[in-house]
Amino acid sequence: MVISSTDNFKIKEIKKLHNKKYRDILGLFIVEGEHLVDEAFKNGYLKEVLLVEESNINIDINKTYISKKVMKSISLLESPSNVIGICNKINEDKKLGNNILILDNIQDPGNLGTIIRSSTAFNVSSIIISEDTVDIYNEKVIRSSQGMIFNINIIRTNLIEKIKELKEEGYYIYGTDVVEGIELKSIEKKDKSVIIIGNEGQGINEETKKLCNEFIYINMSNKCESLNASVAASIILYLFNKD
Amino acid sequence: MVISSTDNFKIKEIKKLHNKKYRDILGLFIVEGEHLVDEAFKNGYLKEVLLVEESNINIDINKTYISKKVMKSISLLESPSNVIGICNKINEDKKLGNNILILDNIQDPGNLGTIIRSSTAFNVSSIIISEDTVDIYNEKVIRSSQGMIFNINIIRTNLIEKIKELKEEGYYIYGTDVVEGIELKSIEKKDKSVIIIGNEGQGINEETKKLCNEFIYINMSNKCESLNASVAASIILYLFNKD
Repeated sequence: MVISSTDNFKIKEIKKLHNKKYRDILGLFIVEGEHLVDEAFKNGYLKEVLLVEESNINIDINKTYISKKVMKSISLLESPSNVIGICNKINEDKKLGNNILILDNIQDPGNLGTIIRSSTAFNVSSIIISEDTVDIYNEKVIRSSQGMIFNINIIRTNLIEKIKELKEEGYYIYGTDVVEGIELKSIEKKDKSVIIIGNEGQGINEETKKLCNEFIYINMSNKCESLNASVAASIILYLFNKD
Repeated sequence: MVISSTDNFKIKEIKKLHNKKYRDILGLFIVEGEHLVDEAFKNGYLKEVLLVEESNINIDINKTYISKKVMKSISLLESPSNVIGICNKINEDKKLGNNILILDNIQDPGNLGTIIRSSTAFNVSSIIISEDTVDIYNEKVIRSSQGMIFNINIIRTNLIEKIKELKEEGYYIYGTDVVEGIELKSIEKKDKSVIIIGNEGQGINEETKKLCNEFIYINMSNKCESLNASVAASIILYLFNKD
């Protein structure tokens, strides 16, 4: 059977997952396209798929066939994919490891996804995001993470409390600053380290700043005021990566 | 006088500039918001502005007042700004300098804009883009460049011919590759250097690859296949920047 009505109850329920409120209530989120569906499956988070008949997905999972029209009604892409995956939300791991990245109010979904991708590439052990950071299950975040959202531990929590805890556990806290600090190339990375990246416009908030042990500065031409947040994070993570 | 009709001839002409074809015919493009209008003005490319009455733009330029409704009809932003600038296309400078970045078929406007921003930050002297790279006057490119499009020399041309010319002039050509090459930290930058960044999905095309003297590889975890193109470019540019 192929669902061909956009008014179908199941389809309407799934479309609600475009909305953060419903993702939170149902504990589910959507991924689109074969690559992301594969990543979700490999990591044990795929619950079911919706697919068009032309699709050639060969995984052992609950499948519902839908018409192209229905796929188009669910998809957020200009050219809808052949498959959409419904996933269970990803578990948070309490063990944080030694290489932590903290994101303080990142607002752009593309930036958050790109930072998740670079963090996985450069062996960040956990990403801690502030409560006001954009939702990690936003589809633009997932797309720009290239599915790396399934490969790294991400925790959403109150930053101030968490940073205080981390300092007590011996972590060294690196802030980032566009005007002053120690140039990145001169920094000696500590074994247990935390890097904090701030909001795209305002940087790190004042309360959080007070908890930093040191500030990292990326040297640049005075023609340019600042770097894109995901670029700044990635440059630092690359230089901090020892593996 | 305030233009309050979206059917006004001038407004209709300006809206055509959202389309690459008309930008090319008219040699004009749009920037939105005070910061970008300022950058255009400072660099001598601002031709005129359209603004709402609340705006407080104090520059000596031809001004047309428009209603908020008309502004909303022109703007591509969810929250339209108070001012839109009409700019003359930016001149290409034949002198390329010693630190060249080449972009081979970059398709995502956000990536191109971010690369332009990082290139300005890290003292790239000229960016050369392939004929199939996304239009630099696309408004998403300009927005993510943060106006740096006015601060760096950008040339669109046939890459193969241009790279051959550059090699004859003594430039050393660095390709980038996600699987093999020399790790970035081990590379000794030559005085006259060209870095080539490839398409988001396919990388550098085969013909272009043959012209490279050496390939740069960015070391990363095998959990992650590749980096975002603007991130990879920015990491390399940061490490190559000697100023």
